[in-house]
Parts: sequence; structure tokens; C-alpha cells
Amino acid sequence: MVFKVDVNGHEIILDAAEEVGGKYSGPRPKPLMLTASAGCTGMDVVSILKKMRVELVDFNVIVEGDLTEEHPKQFSKMNVIYEFKGKDLPLEKLKKAVNLSEERYCGVSSLYKKAIEVTSEIRSLD
Amino acid sequence: MVFKVDVNGHEIILDAAEEVGGKYSGPRPKPLMLTASAGCTGMDVVSILKKMRVELVDFNVIVEGDLTEEHPKQFSKMNVIYEFKGKDLPLEKLKKAVNLSEERYCGVSSLYKKAIEVTSEIRSLD
Repeated sequence: MVFKVDVNGHEIILDAAEEVGGKYSGPRPKPLMLTASAGCTGMDVVSILKKMRVELVDFNVIVEGDLTEEHPKQFSKMNVIYEFKGKDLPLEKLKKAVNLSEERYCGVSSLYKKAIEVTSEIRSLD
Repeated sequence: MVFKVDVNGHEIILDAAEEVGGKYSGPRPKPLMLTASAGCTGMDVVSILKKMRVELVDFNVIVEGDLTEEHPKQFSKMNVIYEFKGKDLPLEKLKKAVNLSEERYCGVSSLYKKAIEVTSEIRSLD
């Protein structure tokens, strides 16, 4: 079940879970949908906040997905959690950056939203 | 723009292209949507053909995506190319395996199809 993937010149190894015949030696395909979403919006938010001169000490994006019970099992809902750490961070600017990514820049979640509900929340790491 | 991603215990480095401030030291997020699709249907097809006792010498899945011109740039169409190599491969069984993945098993393309058109083709590598 191991697939060697060339993503525009970068190699990733995918593998299935053990219960379906894989050895789980690399990510399973479906969670990569969440990875794509996290990376896309994460890069947006970092760029926007840099332009706004907001300095972050740490920044995480966590994307959670609910799967359907029926086959083919697929995400029925996603939630994007933005975790910010920094000194006196201006919440309004954080919200604006997240909103700009969600509404104008992120082409990954834009497609997902055509199929399912995608929610988000902002958390402070301080 | 570098993000270190933990995909259920497996690490991937994501990075942006140079024109948007990255160093392209890892895959960009959007193509990972195609990777997820390729891996999902690829594993399905391999498993199904194994059950059908069809032996493959080589097997590639190539997923191409068209992007919209307008922002947020997103995939407007995907095409999945299945490349099979083997001795006297039974085309009908290959088609059936691909079809089963597309219609019944692959939860990645199942979600994408709710948003955009996803087509496929089968090619022989012999």
C-alpha cells in the first residue's frame, strides 16, 4: 500500500493503516486533505500579519475533520483552530487576517466549503 | 512560510513558492489536495486488483488539476490518470477496479466531486 509521491519535485511516502493492509509508514491520504488546508490558511495568515506588522512568537494551525459513518467515508465537517502566541497581540487584527484568508485567499478551504461546512476558531497560547 | 506538519505522527515540511515569499523547501499546500486524491484511489485500486488476482508490474496514479483564474485560486477540475503495467492485463477488471474506487470507496474524490468535476482515464504502460 506504500505509494511514493512526487509533489512537484518533493517526495512524500504515503501508506495505509495496518487494518487495511498497510504498515502506516507514511501519512494516510485522507488526512492530507486537512494538511493542505492547514498549510494554505497558515501561510496566508502569517503573510497578512507580517504586512500588518504583528509579530508572532508562535503560531499553530490545527485542522480537525469529522468523518461520515457511511461509505465512502469522507469528511462531513472541518474545524480550523488558529493558535497564536505573542506579546499583546491585537485580537482584531488576528481575526481580520483569519477572515481574509477564509474569504479571499485560501483556495483549499474555498473548495472544501463548496462541499461541506468549515468552521474556525482563534485561541491564545498565552 | 515553512510549516512543520504533524500528520497523525508523520512529519511533512510545507513551504510556499519563491514568488510569494517561500523557499519551496517542501510541497506547497494546494498540490497536496491532488496527492490526497492520488493516494486514496491508488490504494483502493491496488487492493481491489489484488482481490481480483490481477498482478501488476507497475502502477502510477497522476492527478492533474486546473486552477481558476480568479481569486481565491482553486481547482476547478481534476483529472485522474491510472497507468498500469503488467502481462496481459484484463482491461475490464482494471476499469471495474477504478470504477469501484470512484463510486464506492474513495472518500477524497467523493468530497471533491461535490464541488468540482473529476474525470479519469486508464492508460497502459506496455
